[in-house]
Amino acid sequence: MARRSRTRPASSGSDKNLRHLSHPFDPQSIFTTDRVEHMHNLALRLLQEHGIDVLDDEAIDLLSQNGAIVSDQRVRIGPEMVTEALRTAPQRFQMRAANPGRDQDVYPGRLLFSPGGGCPNVSDRINGRRPGDLASYADAVRLMQSFDVIHKLSPAPEPQDIPVHLRHYAMLRTQISLSDKPLTVYARGRAQVEQSFELIREALGVADDDFSGSAWCSTVINTNSPRLLDRPMAQGLMDFARAGQLAIVTPFCLAGAMAPITVAGALVLQHAEALAAITLNQLVRPGAPVLYGGFGSNVDMRSGAPAFGTPEQIQMAIGSGQLARHIGLPWRSAAGTASNANDMQAAQETSMALWGTLQAGATMVFHACGWLEGGLTLGFEKFVADIEMLQTIAHLCQPPAADDDAMGWDALISVDPGGHFFDTQQTMERYRDAFAEPLLADLSNHGTWMASGGQTAEERATALWMQKLADFQPPEGAQDRAERIATMIERMTAGGGAPLIE
Amino acid sequence: MARRSRTRPASSGSDKNLRHLSHPFDPQSIFTTDRVEHMHNLALRLLQEHGIDVLDDEAIDLLSQNGAIVSDQRVRIGPEMVTEALRTAPQRFQMRAANPGRDQDVYPGRLLFSPGGGCPNVSDRINGRRPGDLASYADAVRLMQSFDVIHKLSPAPEPQDIPVHLRHYAMLRTQISLSDKPLTVYARGRAQVEQSFELIREALGVADDDFSGSAWCSTVINTNSPRLLDRPMAQGLMDFARAGQLAIVTPFCLAGAMAPITVAGALVLQHAEALAAITLNQLVRPGAPVLYGGFGSNVDMRSGAPAFGTPEQIQMAIGSGQLARHIGLPWRSAAGTASNANDMQAAQETSMALWGTLQAGATMVFHACGWLEGGLTLGFEKFVADIEMLQTIAHLCQPPAADDDAMGWDALISVDPGGHFFDTQQTMERYRDAFAEPLLADLSNHGTWMASGGQTAEERATALWMQKLADFQPPEGAQDRAERIATMIERMTAGGGAPLIE
Repeated sequence: MARRSRTRPASSGSDKNLRHLSHPFDPQSIFTTDRVEHMHNLALRLLQEHGIDVLDDEAIDLLSQNGAIVSDQRVRIGPEMVTEALRTAPQRFQMRAANPGRDQDVYPGRLLFSPGGGCPNVSDRINGRRPGDLASYADAVRLMQSFDVIHKLSPAPEPQDIPVHLRHYAMLRTQISLSDKPLTVYARGRAQVEQSFELIREALGVADDDFSGSAWCSTVINTNSPRLLDRPMAQGLMDFARAGQLAIVTPFCLAGAMAPITVAGALVLQHAEALAAITLNQLVRPGAPVLYGGFGSNVDMRSGAPAFGTPEQIQMAIGSGQLARHIGLPWRSAAGTASNANDMQAAQETSMALWGTLQAGATMVFHACGWLEGGLTLGFEKFVADIEMLQTIAHLCQPPAADDDAMGWDALISVDPGGHFFDTQQTMERYRDAFAEPLLADLSNHGTWMASGGQTAEERATALWMQKLADFQPPEGAQDRAERIATMIERMTAGGGAPLIE
Repeated sequence: MARRSRTRPASSGSDKNLRHLSHPFDPQSIFTTDRVEHMHNLALRLLQEHGIDVLDDEAIDLLSQNGAIVSDQRVRIGPEMVTEALRTAPQRFQMRAANPGRDQDVYPGRLLFSPGGGCPNVSDRINGRRPGDLASYADAVRLMQSFDVIHKLSPAPEPQDIPVHLRHYAMLRTQISLSDKPLTVYARGRAQVEQSFELIREALGVADDDFSGSAWCSTVINTNSPRLLDRPMAQGLMDFARAGQLAIVTPFCLAGAMAPITVAGALVLQHAEALAAITLNQLVRPGAPVLYGGFGSNVDMRSGAPAFGTPEQIQMAIGSGQLARHIGLPWRSAAGTASNANDMQAAQETSMALWGTLQAGATMVFHACGWLEGGLTLGFEKFVADIEMLQTIAHLCQPPAADDDAMGWDALISVDPGGHFFDTQQTMERYRDAFAEPLLADLSNHGTWMASGGQTAEERATALWMQKLADFQPPEGAQDRAERIATMIERMTAGGGAPLIE
């Protein structure tokens, strides 16, 4: 395979400051330091005394060889193993992209947004709600590519019209041909993962050594709470580590259902599961890029339905952040909503959860846009509406100017009482780019708004995503990169694809 | 006037924890300490060298007698006057209510929510958008009373069907007859204000000394930016101080229009205006309850339209919080939205601005619910939808349990991998009240939601406010309190009411 230099495309005119963000706020705390330490110790004790079930023989053998006590599939992991894994897990690593301008340094204090993921369905006001297919996945990737505030790709909606043994080809080709952002790969078994790595290396022209030297793609590793690591997830933890690719460890702990009903108890479980996953990952290759993480909320105790944007989700995020700081690792959190419609509930819950991740100092915020129905649907109107919030946060990441010029003394004394600042020199020098233009918000007064059709944000969002898709141009080099793997995919397809493991 | 003891009504079954809130988070900073001090000093210099226009002779005389340099209506206020006012302005005071259970200690670190104010119009999905009238003001007050997370009343929508010289009677009687929360009075001239105080004393059975000893009502004092204090506002500052009632000082500084285009410059102007108002207030009666405040955002530089929920609004709130901490006073901030509809824009902007006030450590958050169209309309659907967010925040104000019982060790070890926590003892002990029930959110899955009518949050909100109004019962004693001022209002009305001053 020829090693190709990645080209840095000319500026698209978009705001570069949205691409690389650092948290504007100090992370908050809801537990005292000693309680966080206690939760950490309880998680270690849970792993040591009661263990976690692992459904993959290779993973069990590896853990056993390194000191874990195994009984059938129950694996008891001692604190010294966890401590060693936390010693080797990197506090900082690079997430790479086809476009070097979209590479990301990942470390505590950075802020990255990832679109809604894991959605079987897709919905928009033109085509309705329907199972995801390859065409809608391609459109979703076009939207992900269209906004700089989205920092990596996600695998939603699921292209269910493609057979599962061939789906990883289609998803990867779609990402590579339409985007230059960091790629995502499902960990659905070794065969699919290794083929995906091979395709990425070829498409991006990355030599084997370079590939394993930093994270060119990532996957989400969900534990099955409580305390179960299934076969594809265990394999994914090992395979991604072996290849130096990024495993994003994410217990999904719903307090009151698959986790204790208390925030503290749910966090102990989440922490134990995450530590077990990180331990397996680091045993394969110490120093492999890995994100600690959690996606916690509560269920409605009457119906059992997952709830989002709740006080408990926000508290679990902040507690997760404290645990992440306790072990010194970057980590992922998530926004979310249970709403079925593009309505105030959807916006409120997503916003509440999003601000929770900001309070928590999350390094990577999943489901940052487009998520509806607790993740069962990726909505295009919701997607572009959420982008408005993410751009607001991104602009907040830049502190306001505080130099003497910004203080505006000359303007302040040049305008008499009752006057205005529209034509002061300070205003004239800045008015073009002082404030970000709203993406979707309509600021006109009621009369003007009615006269121009009285459209809601949802209706305007339809026009916006349609325009974005109509205007879409693949980024420079993307089609070439996709071309480079076309025959490889043909060959792999002819060879029968790669089996999914459940 | 007979002095009557206020009765504490029996519990309504509502959650008492919503009534008295303290901030769950540490306030954030966007400026360094030395820049905050610099802004403070620039504001002092602006007042000293360039002054503020005051349109009331009594206020001018008072400021002049205390050392201000007056030239026509331009009043230059020296830093020693401001410093003395900041020395006497209370860091802590009580806001009183007809119901002692709704009294509020106001000091930095507390968190109070005030509904949307200043709205000429009202809207709901049943009656449409229309000018406010007394019937809709009464309904608004019923809604304000119905949710414990609302901590004081507000004067919106404006009852425009009542002549202005009689309107203060109608607004006060409406508040007193339907609510037991802290009252609000417009500062629209001395005659109206003094009559209002008289009515409140009589209705609540508060002796003169008791009345002036703590704040039984409040008013918002808006400066006219830049640097102008009109006659009703100047009188209000003096009259409220004289009576020991609460003046909530609120410059409304829109960066790029009536304030400098930079956040820092707009804050210097806001700070100067607020300091001038506090100085006048404290000259009348040192120690009178007063809130520092600001309501700042930016305008859209293409249209001049005010924008809300923007990065600039959030930054101005956080900067205001830093300035408030610099001078050691409790302070008010505000949420807000420019949206014309009950849509995602409305929810996003309000939520963004609301979280800004939380980052800022605001003591009192105005326009916390119901505000639409940049304040031109109070919307009933928006009102109840916003309550969901406020209740989420209120629940966040209580940190999660972190004792050993909450850690859930017994539950964690009693549930095997792959199991669930629904029937653990820890869950059984807590499931009834572990999580707050959603007010408006629908957590059902898409099929169930569609089968039950597929209502949006806006549509459900209509049913919710209608139900709240249908179920409404005035709080204990409210009708009696209103009865006590009926003849007084008749007499005042027969006397010709009280003139509005512009």
